[in-house]
Amino acid sequence: MTQPSAPEQNPATETEKPWGGRFSEPTDAFVEGFTASVNFDKRLYHHDIEGSIAHATMLAKVGVLTEMERDAIVQGLKDIRAEIERGEFQWSVKLEDVHMNIESALTARIGITGKKLHTGRSRNDQVATDVRLYLRDEIDTIAAELTRLQTGLIDLASREADTIMPGFTHLQTAQPVTFGHHLLAWNEMLQRDYERLIDSRKRVNILPLGAAALAGTTYPIDRLMTAELLGFERPTENSLDSVSDRDFAIEFCSFASLLLMHLSRMSEELVLWTSSQFNFINLPDRFCTGSSIMPQKKNPDVPELVRGKSGRVYGHLMSLLTLMKSQPLAYNKDNQEDKEPLFDAIDTVKGCLRAFADMVPAIEPRREVMHEAARRGFATATDLADYLVRKGVPFRDAHEIVGKSVAFGVAENRDLADMTLAELQQFSDIIGADVFEVLTLEGSVAARNHLGGTAPEQVRAAAVRARNLLRQRAG
Amino acid sequence: MTQPSAPEQNPATETEKPWGGRFSEPTDAFVEGFTASVNFDKRLYHHDIEGSIAHATMLAKVGVLTEMERDAIVQGLKDIRAEIERGEFQWSVKLEDVHMNIESALTARIGITGKKLHTGRSRNDQVATDVRLYLRDEIDTIAAELTRLQTGLIDLASREADTIMPGFTHLQTAQPVTFGHHLLAWNEMLQRDYERLIDSRKRVNILPLGAAALAGTTYPIDRLMTAELLGFERPTENSLDSVSDRDFAIEFCSFASLLLMHLSRMSEELVLWTSSQFNFINLPDRFCTGSSIMPQKKNPDVPELVRGKSGRVYGHLMSLLTLMKSQPLAYNKDNQEDKEPLFDAIDTVKGCLRAFADMVPAIEPRREVMHEAARRGFATATDLADYLVRKGVPFRDAHEIVGKSVAFGVAENRDLADMTLAELQQFSDIIGADVFEVLTLEGSVAARNHLGGTAPEQVRAAAVRARNLLRQRAG
Amino acid sequence: MTQPSAPEQNPATETEKPWGGRFSEPTDAFVEGFTASVNFDKRLYHHDIEGSIAHATMLAKVGVLTEMERDAIVQGLKDIRAEIERGEFQWSVKLEDVHMNIESALTARIGITGKKLHTGRSRNDQVATDVRLYLRDEIDTIAAELTRLQTGLIDLASREADTIMPGFTHLQTAQPVTFGHHLLAWNEMLQRDYERLIDSRKRVNILPLGAAALAGTTYPIDRLMTAELLGFERPTENSLDSVSDRDFAIEFCSFASLLLMHLSRMSEELVLWTSSQFNFINLPDRFCTGSSIMPQKKNPDVPELVRGKSGRVYGHLMSLLTLMKSQPLAYNKDNQEDKEPLFDAIDTVKGCLRAFADMVPAIEPRREVMHEAARRGFATATDLADYLVRKGVPFRDAHEIVGKSVAFGVAENRDLADMTLAELQQFSDIIGADVFEVLTLEGSVAARNHLGGTAPEQVRAAAVRARNLLRQRAG
Amino acid sequence: MTQPSAPEQNPATETEKPWGGRFSEPTDAFVEGFTASVNFDKRLYHHDIEGSIAHATMLAKVGVLTEMERDAIVQGLKDIRAEIERGEFQWSVKLEDVHMNIESALTARIGITGKKLHTGRSRNDQVATDVRLYLRDEIDTIAAELTRLQTGLIDLASREADTIMPGFTHLQTAQPVTFGHHLLAWNEMLQRDYERLIDSRKRVNILPLGAAALAGTTYPIDRLMTAELLGFERPTENSLDSVSDRDFAIEFCSFASLLLMHLSRMSEELVLWTSSQFNFINLPDRFCTGSSIMPQKKNPDVPELVRGKSGRVYGHLMSLLTLMKSQPLAYNKDNQEDKEPLFDAIDTVKGCLRAFADMVPAIEPRREVMHEAARRGFATATDLADYLVRKGVPFRDAHEIVGKSVAFGVAENRDLADMTLAELQQFSDIIGADVFEVLTLEGSVAARNHLGGTAPEQVRAAAVRARNLLRQRAG
Repeated sequence: MTQPSAPEQNPATETEKPWGGRFSEPTDAFVEGFTASVNFDKRLYHHDIEGSIAHATMLAKVGVLTEMERDAIVQGLKDIRAEIERGEFQWSVKLEDVHMNIESALTARIGITGKKLHTGRSRNDQVATDVRLYLRDEIDTIAAELTRLQTGLIDLASREADTIMPGFTHLQTAQPVTFGHHLLAWNEMLQRDYERLIDSRKRVNILPLGAAALAGTTYPIDRLMTAELLGFERPTENSLDSVSDRDFAIEFCSFASLLLMHLSRMSEELVLWTSSQFNFINLPDRFCTGSSIMPQKKNPDVPELVRGKSGRVYGHLMSLLTLMKSQPLAYNKDNQEDKEPLFDAIDTVKGCLRAFADMVPAIEPRREVMHEAARRGFATATDLADYLVRKGVPFRDAHEIVGKSVAFGVAENRDLADMTLAELQQFSDIIGADVFEVLTLEGSVAARNHLGGTAPEQVRAAAVRARNLLRQRAG
Repeated sequence: MTQPSAPEQNPATETEKPWGGRFSEPTDAFVEGFTASVNFDKRLYHHDIEGSIAHATMLAKVGVLTEMERDAIVQGLKDIRAEIERGEFQWSVKLEDVHMNIESALTARIGITGKKLHTGRSRNDQVATDVRLYLRDEIDTIAAELTRLQTGLIDLASREADTIMPGFTHLQTAQPVTFGHHLLAWNEMLQRDYERLIDSRKRVNILPLGAAALAGTTYPIDRLMTAELLGFERPTENSLDSVSDRDFAIEFCSFASLLLMHLSRMSEELVLWTSSQFNFINLPDRFCTGSSIMPQKKNPDVPELVRGKSGRVYGHLMSLLTLMKSQPLAYNKDNQEDKEPLFDAIDTVKGCLRAFADMVPAIEPRREVMHEAARRGFATATDLADYLVRKGVPFRDAHEIVGKSVAFGVAENRDLADMTLAELQQFSDIIGADVFEVLTLEGSVAARNHLGGTAPEQVRAAAVRARNLLRQRAG
Repeated sequence: MTQPSAPEQNPATETEKPWGGRFSEPTDAFVEGFTASVNFDKRLYHHDIEGSIAHATMLAKVGVLTEMERDAIVQGLKDIRAEIERGEFQWSVKLEDVHMNIESALTARIGITGKKLHTGRSRNDQVATDVRLYLRDEIDTIAAELTRLQTGLIDLASREADTIMPGFTHLQTAQPVTFGHHLLAWNEMLQRDYERLIDSRKRVNILPLGAAALAGTTYPIDRLMTAELLGFERPTENSLDSVSDRDFAIEFCSFASLLLMHLSRMSEELVLWTSSQFNFINLPDRFCTGSSIMPQKKNPDVPELVRGKSGRVYGHLMSLLTLMKSQPLAYNKDNQEDKEPLFDAIDTVKGCLRAFADMVPAIEPRREVMHEAARRGFATATDLADYLVRKGVPFRDAHEIVGKSVAFGVAENRDLADMTLAELQQFSDIIGADVFEVLTLEGSVAARNHLGGTAPEQVRAAAVRARNLLRQRAG
Repeated sequence: MTQPSAPEQNPATETEKPWGGRFSEPTDAFVEGFTASVNFDKRLYHHDIEGSIAHATMLAKVGVLTEMERDAIVQGLKDIRAEIERGEFQWSVKLEDVHMNIESALTARIGITGKKLHTGRSRNDQVATDVRLYLRDEIDTIAAELTRLQTGLIDLASREADTIMPGFTHLQTAQPVTFGHHLLAWNEMLQRDYERLIDSRKRVNILPLGAAALAGTTYPIDRLMTAELLGFERPTENSLDSVSDRDFAIEFCSFASLLLMHLSRMSEELVLWTSSQFNFINLPDRFCTGSSIMPQKKNPDVPELVRGKSGRVYGHLMSLLTLMKSQPLAYNKDNQEDKEPLFDAIDTVKGCLRAFADMVPAIEPRREVMHEAARRGFATATDLADYLVRKGVPFRDAHEIVGKSVAFGVAENRDLADMTLAELQQFSDIIGADVFEVLTLEGSVAARNHLGGTAPEQVRAAAVRARNLLRQRAG
């Protein structure tokens, strides 16, 4: 009671390929290497073995394997896993992929029983299962790293809730904001990334095993049991779709592209802020490199590199979308090309998140520089206009008053807050001593005191809410 | 008690721009056209007015507008909306965008009170609100069209649960499946698309209004009230993020890319199936075009065009990801480029879904052709091997027996099911009369009788489950 | 002696489609709009008529048309062109595309002879010809605009050959360069773009007409004559390739993507330089917008918008590459999707080039600000080390001397060039009075006096060479 | 007389980094790995050493190095190259990249003189030089492989100039063509690819060395000499551009995308043609894989995989375009991300070309199957209409006659060429015995006898022209 039902299966051995009988010539040596995937899919070994153990356990439960056969298989697989982890396993390109390498090693160890493991499955559903198991684990790692980065951001934002910096639109000074507020804007981006990641996980966590080559199997498999053993939420609904669906890889790359886009924006700002023109922050030395000649030079390598890595992940997304375009059902060899983009996207995301999660808590704001930059540029002109309008001045008149005040300031090289009351009153006698509450940077930010506004009070409240969201993740 | 706090606002009129005072020369005529957006953003008029009415209502509630002012504004906006819908509104490129066109028309109608509408907001948060309102409506339309398409698919699948066709891998005949099963594979793709769409809607349905230019406003606005009036789930958490976030547009294009990828796969199959080489189905004439010369010719234009439109949507996704890469906070003019890709992606999705939802129910399968195609190619060779293994034949022996049987069939030009029992028994006397149950196409598909398998019984059950999922949407 | 050989041709009229006989139902109204292209391909009218006139002329030459028929056709086409240009032509979606609209109008004007125009051709080769004619003209326009932009750049670079600014790597001040040198770096990018454009033109300028539907025609056409009449370099070599090749559109979008990438880099720098943190240049008012509230605000809208438009063009490139992926020969309806991305890429390139060509000559450098920025940051530390090494100091010692000098400068808040000889000599008595020649910014840039270096002398020579390249274009 | 002028240079050693003095903490270990490139850029070792030898030779010529120093450096570099090629070189991630690994090994071998090699250059111009040298060699390899593939195609096309197959549009049988003609359509695609490759090579073959970090160097370098030594056409014109330009990598990926698009189209056709529905060709076994169960199964793995690899290359193109978007001058760390996409694009192109160049000559057409497929579907209906029109029948009448003939054929299940003259004459007595010359497939293809047409005579002539183009390449 054994035997693979998989038509796609190529249980090749070092000496012969079992489908070789029909073939009048061996596979070309170059073609063998060109079509093999073991060099990149061997990283799936852990999940391939995890899936195989569950499959064997299920097969024994439904009577396709004996308990002894199951035990031999499970033990053999565990031994192979240990061998791989000791770095002693001999991977063979001739055996094409991780699956055949492991199956072949299993048969070498435990004999013909090893072949029975493949009963009721095919490489088509096996690889889909492996990738889902692997990706699910990586998603969980990435979710934890996102949480770590957000925690550092929120902590920093809380500390800097009162730190004033210029707010930019069009990279022109617009209105004062607080540095904490700016950092929480970053956190919002990452919060959405986290939610997208968790949403996508639902569509990863489904078991394709049992689809066999494309149509299901004639063995009395119990897919609910396998799903439960592997922690999947449920089995897939349709065998043809199961072996050809790569949506989960694309959706992950879509998540990754948005995340890297956000990190590229943060990186751009870090690069700007560490330039001598801005000089808003100091980045910890360990995230920078210097120059053998110019002692003053400190290059923000990590943000630059992360910014550049956005291209890499966008590329992988485009690669996978192109890969799947126009493919007829069910499995086609094209799909082997799904792995490298996905793997590299995962590695890139993990690397960039780690770099940022390490780096963000170590950002040292130069508070006086930021404050001084905000002071320049008449950043509170809006506040003066708002003040006048609140005093009943019609809009057009208010605008004219502000315009003249600014012109005076430009001529005198003084900001609005640096003028005397008398000076301001030459433009409108409605202006009173209370104007300085709104003309100061502190008054300006404090006045934007509503949900989402930049007032320090709001920033602190937003940080509390953001931290609560993080706490709920653990729950 | 009025007045915009928006530093980005350019309430230009036909005769002058209010920020013109500082400028020594007028905007270049070419530049004016180059930077204007009204030609494409005027489609937001309905949602711009909807948002403005809610904003005015909120401003009156918190005392920034009088009730009379609010009523004048609301009535004026409704009149403008009617004028637009009658096709009588004069759009002006000089007024840059939909917002300034409408505001300017409002002021022309109701006088200076019209200007007060812009109190406590900026074009930066206004446009973000408009696009979210617009996209939310379009998502709901698209969700309904997806449901219509899936309904048609499931209906057809139910009718064709017993129809046998060849299942392909590598476009080579692999094993028999049912046409209903194949169609339900399509449905699974669309089911995931639907889920992604609904997931993305959560991140669209949040109110950015109140962020003003970038930092919030000094007016006592009530964002919770505005959110409620507009049916948003909640206000956004951070003003800087609110005006610069375009994730929702990218996430929509990501959904759209996956959907169009799926439609390109279905289209590819429809094109294959209508070729004279396959000839599996007849497509309704109204989805095809003919030739003036060749009366036999019927081109599957609609699937071809939909297949091609995948490129368009992939392009828009890449466009938006590139757009946002490396942008520093907060609003930059670059962001004006978000609209055309999003709008075209929406239009494309709606058009393609409509075409498919109309077309799918009218597909006419040529059941005999499909059946005959499945019969060729020894599609049940897997079943014979499985049969032998179940009878206790070791795998290697079973494989040899099947190989010889097929070789005999090739020589005799007969499929396995067409051989006599005696003929089959020359290869193994273990073969009994019950072999024909598994050698027929009907037996082969019936034997794959587990969750997700191609057995007609399973297809019918899957169709019921799929239909139930559609029903729950209405709930 | 007439008649189309085109199997793809659908000479539909308002009342009936000639291929309708085989069809049991009319085209669905929605489908008709969904598959029509006239709304976007009507911009080809001029080149469609140009191609038709040449085709008719050739047909008359080889005896397929009489001279009278040819004259009627040519006159009819010219009248239609005039009608279109007067805005009086009635475009009909029912007639699908620009070709059928014009052919139908021709037949309405001159009777059955109008139909004879389509002899020996098909819409498949006709549309390929139209797009190539159109693109060739646009390439010539774009080449001229590139030349205009480069001329402005080189002129400005010549004027600013001595203007010193900080050279950046990693956005950190590295070494002084001249503004003219920086501008010529931009010119190098554009020079490559120009060369790519001209290279791509060779592959556009080939005549596909004569391929008919896919296989050529049985009429005795003279493709060399048609090619000559239309200014094409030669006819295409293969009919199947002729009707399915869209490389030229992709290659144009590839050119456009590189160009827009370059413009996005220049735009990024313009945005940085107009920020108050850099303040290196003033952009002419007419390329900016202001704010109704903040009189100091001037947003660099044009560079921002151009920067954003890079995404649009990248998207079109990806769109076309996806479109063509996996298409079997020869013509498929998918290909109708080639036009909108190409047209929009052309429009975008022309708009951005015009904006830049207008804007660049009007850039006003703030020379003192640039100079002062270069002075800060010990930009000539490299020069001091080079000086010491030339005096025979071993590298390691030189590095230590420079390091100590800079540390002294940091403590004293003075740049190297601001120290006295005595002060410098405390670190090494090898330093002589000639050190100031290399420590000044002027000395530093002058010393990089080799081909490609930043020395003003080299900049001026490079400008001369660059201008000569422009002159050769006219030749 | 020594010493690097490169501010970007980080001549780190295992024990210390020379720019470490200013830094209060060592580079983080994770960051060290994250920012290192040696794992992928070590493949540049050969060209790095080639460039260094030329640089040292030039430095000796201009007197910056003594002849003895030069000889020590050159010998040291050659020894290192031999060591690398023996697989004995110890690469160190701590030394960041290939350049520092080699320089460090050189200094370890020959002492302080090793450091002098870096005089007058920087890693910024060094890496740009290395990549250009490397890419130039790979372009030449690829050009040769393209020529080999085209040679095989043209040979096959010549052999199959008379082989008739159905020509498709919309994947519907349209008109008969010859298999040779179809193959030459493929050759046209590759011919354009070759031309694009050669065009792009011009822009690769330019020497950036001498740009140093960004501004040039103060040493009296002779860039013309270095360019000549390395076989470059000329030195670059502008130092800032030299270190930041990555156009050549993008242009290569653009070439590669078009090439892979073409190969995806050919692959799609190969997959179709090897399906049992088409069955037009047999692919050599060594390019396929089989199945352990289904002896009849032969999967066209190589074309499928190549088709899928189009996505990979498109992705790299998008990756590099994104990478460069919005980067300010000059060198930024982002640019380190240019290598992996470029390297993988090169490897992919070489692998796919090799697979195709090996496979194409071994394609075995099933001529009878193709012929029979062309016979079905009234493929010569166009020819009958053309025949009638040439006899003077008005178009509308001719169309009606053909329509009726086809309807008769459909009813009788006979193609036009299978009818008797009498049968045909029932529809029009103008039809004569000469009609069969045009109704046969042979007559139909022979009649398309003009430049670019499918007539065997034309195919043979086209093959001669195509072969001549290949011959000119050698010249």
